[in-house]
Amino acid sequence: MLYPLRTYLIVSGRLNSIVNVMAADWVIVLSANPFLIGVSISPKRFTHRLIREFGEFVVSVPSIDMVNDVWITGSESGPEKLKKVKFTFIPSKSVSTPSIREALANLECRVFDTRDYGDHTLFVGRVVNYSFKENVFKNMEPDLSAGFLAHIAWNKFTSFSDRVVFV
Amino acid sequence: MLYPLRTYLIVSGRLNSIVNVMAADWVIVLSANPFLIGVSISPKRFTHRLIREFGEFVVSVPSIDMVNDVWITGSESGPEKLKKVKFTFIPSKSVSTPSIREALANLECRVFDTRDYGDHTLFVGRVVNYSFKENVFKNMEPDLSAGFLAHIAWNKFTSFSDRVVFV
Repeated sequence: MLYPLRTYLIVSGRLNSIVNVMAADWVIVLSANPFLIGVSISPKRFTHRLIREFGEFVVSVPSIDMVNDVWITGSESGPEKLKKVKFTFIPSKSVSTPSIREALANLECRVFDTRDYGDHTLFVGRVVNYSFKENVFKNMEPDLSAGFLAHIAWNKFTSFSDRVVFV
Repeated sequence: MLYPLRTYLIVSGRLNSIVNVMAADWVIVLSANPFLIGVSISPKRFTHRLIREFGEFVVSVPSIDMVNDVWITGSESGPEKLKKVKFTFIPSKSVSTPSIREALANLECRVFDTRDYGDHTLFVGRVVNYSFKENVFKNMEPDLSAGFLAHIAWNKFTSFSDRVVFV
């Protein structure tokens, strides 16, 4: 009943050893200052193990053009799936977990807290650095023409309407 | 950089004494089973005090038709603002905090955990019951024609595109 929700990519691991990516809808901003975000991840996911091990992760913002690759990373577990996707991993600025070149933005996080809630774990990350496409976030406002990805249900995705309402 | 985000309404208090509503973008699903959701709220908000006091809250799902009232509840603090909005408060099924009749769905939560992160508090709620418009969530899938509300920046809102992508 909270859907549709935005879909993000969670990158974990290390650039020249092991890297994994999974799609995640369960992402939240927790604090503005310090800038903290949370990601809820099942302990069954390989990403869970990598974040535990390295204490870092990157939240990448995909566009709807990347939906097929996003689906692969969300529906298959483990880094083998990355052979099927067209993501380019590039060094992040402040963490050793890579960013994704094709993404609209990359938020580089260091684990600040870890807490189990029910069948998932909330990883709270402090955003220590970020990169973004300047034509997509002008004056830090998202430009809807970038095609931000949202998840409706199972294999159904969408993006936002062009109609902006000013109140 | 995580925006646009969905906007929800957080109802707090008690039906025949004090009720408050605030708009919140910082909402997450934390666990499927048990069904746990989290809401990040500033300690400056009156809602923060009411949730602390009563240990319950309701997450209501507004449509874009409600955007002016959503804006009032988001930009003003305290229950006085409710005189300006057209919400109808109705009894919830399992908590004493009311639901909103006009909302697309109402998720009734009992506080499961409370944790301070930076300048906000994460209230984790166990969803103990819910109500929803059956024409909006058929087979538990959201129907985009309902006009789910999303927040772009400050006073700019939007909804989703009609275009559904099947992967």
